[in-house]
Amino acid sequence: MTCRARGGFCAKTGCVLRVEPFAEADLTHDAMLGGKAMIRQPRVGYRAGTDPVLLAATIEAKPGQSVLELGCGAGPGLCCLGARVPGVQLYGIELQPAYAALARRNLSENGLGGTVWEGDLSAPPPEMRALSFHHVMANPPYFEAGRGIAAQDAGRGLGRAGETPLATWVAVAAKRLRPRGYMTFIQRAERLPELLAAMQAHVGALELLPLLPRPGRAPRLVLVRGRKDGKAAFRFHPPQVIHAPGEHEDGVNNYSEAFTKVMKHGAGLPFSE
Amino acid sequence: MTCRARGGFCAKTGCVLRVEPFAEADLTHDAMLGGKAMIRQPRVGYRAGTDPVLLAATIEAKPGQSVLELGCGAGPGLCCLGARVPGVQLYGIELQPAYAALARRNLSENGLGGTVWEGDLSAPPPEMRALSFHHVMANPPYFEAGRGIAAQDAGRGLGRAGETPLATWVAVAAKRLRPRGYMTFIQRAERLPELLAAMQAHVGALELLPLLPRPGRAPRLVLVRGRKDGKAAFRFHPPQVIHAPGEHEDGVNNYSEAFTKVMKHGAGLPFSE
Repeated sequence: MTCRARGGFCAKTGCVLRVEPFAEADLTHDAMLGGKAMIRQPRVGYRAGTDPVLLAATIEAKPGQSVLELGCGAGPGLCCLGARVPGVQLYGIELQPAYAALARRNLSENGLGGTVWEGDLSAPPPEMRALSFHHVMANPPYFEAGRGIAAQDAGRGLGRAGETPLATWVAVAAKRLRPRGYMTFIQRAERLPELLAAMQAHVGALELLPLLPRPGRAPRLVLVRGRKDGKAAFRFHPPQVIHAPGEHEDGVNNYSEAFTKVMKHGAGLPFSE
Repeated sequence: MTCRARGGFCAKTGCVLRVEPFAEADLTHDAMLGGKAMIRQPRVGYRAGTDPVLLAATIEAKPGQSVLELGCGAGPGLCCLGARVPGVQLYGIELQPAYAALARRNLSENGLGGTVWEGDLSAPPPEMRALSFHHVMANPPYFEAGRGIAAQDAGRGLGRAGETPLATWVAVAAKRLRPRGYMTFIQRAERLPELLAAMQAHVGALELLPLLPRPGRAPRLVLVRGRKDGKAAFRFHPPQVIHAPGEHEDGVNNYSEAFTKVMKHGAGLPFSE
């Protein structure tokens, strides 16, 4: 069941949409990519971690190509992509009005053009349905509806335990892809079978890039890419390691050398070297 | 389409079944697990590599439990499992009569009891259909029918480019599992989406163990396990590395420390430590 509420409380699902804009005092202003992107986001609620940064880093968009992000939140992924690829055309759709407004502001403040629609990705506005894109990317909610941890904040709740099934995200992405276009998803490793199955139904040439938190550990996150009309066999790429060996130092993300380039210097993260 | 030929040439698919027993001069006698299992297999044809040894090493069977191998070939997997787990009840089914006969001989010469049926796993004999097993394991052919490299030997051809779809292997395994029993497959990494999708349709609690040939490389093989009636979330285990860093020395498999224990000393290979 998909929450189709607009601009308020949905009696059917109990979701609360954050409509009212965030007060300035409730926002932080965070440097991403070593300051190449500056993102305003709510102090409490759905805050961008490394995921949208990593997702954006994998998109092999060329200048002038179009990229749509489904569920773009406050726009950190779009801003990171725009900072890396000059002239890329950025589009996003976000269910929560307050986050969609923040995404527009973040794009603008980062000197990036772009269009952010406010709406449910499973029933996109006509302007979005009229377009198709070279790339579609998404970082869908992590917990299955009804199985997630109760969220203390409505925005965080929708961001992390959304009502839209993963298969719907993938189907919408497929519909909006240009011929030979790529869709790229970042997701918790636990949902890999579900994500692969959904993608197999719509696109080909699937590729998997697992991200290990440290050497020898199980991946927490996977990146999966598929290509519209792709015929190539599935590729399982060498797992990449996010953090250097050893313990986190206090308050410091000790990224591996490759991921320091991605997270702090705005380098791309290709699926294969 | 499944080749249901018995004991000869099948006009429908063109497969040739190896019926005539191998001549002694055409067999090698190979030490596996450092000599804990001695396997006779044809010099030319389908010869066991590391795959059945690794597959057998992952089966967490307890003494007295029953294990069925689908497509057991000359029985290297069954013999390795029997060498590691005393008192395990071994069963196999093999399409090719000459290989089924060799599997029986290998079991017997290794001092292991066991039953090997000759037949098509997709239409198993009544004796097999009457049983259910604690574990089912399989190392299905690697190349999709019609896409594989032309085999120069009929036995090798059926072993490596079999006519039975992967989904059928999984469905048959599921049917023969006891409640809460495990199925374990080893397969080329390229077929992971197909294997996961097939398993998802029949069993739960899926687990993936990718095997990297060397550190930093893409996995060539994956082990996937599922449990009948399992409810647990999918687990993506830490990838394991088969060979030590550096080049193969001439004619020497420089296994990593962990895999030396598995390949040369008969240790188990658990999905997670």
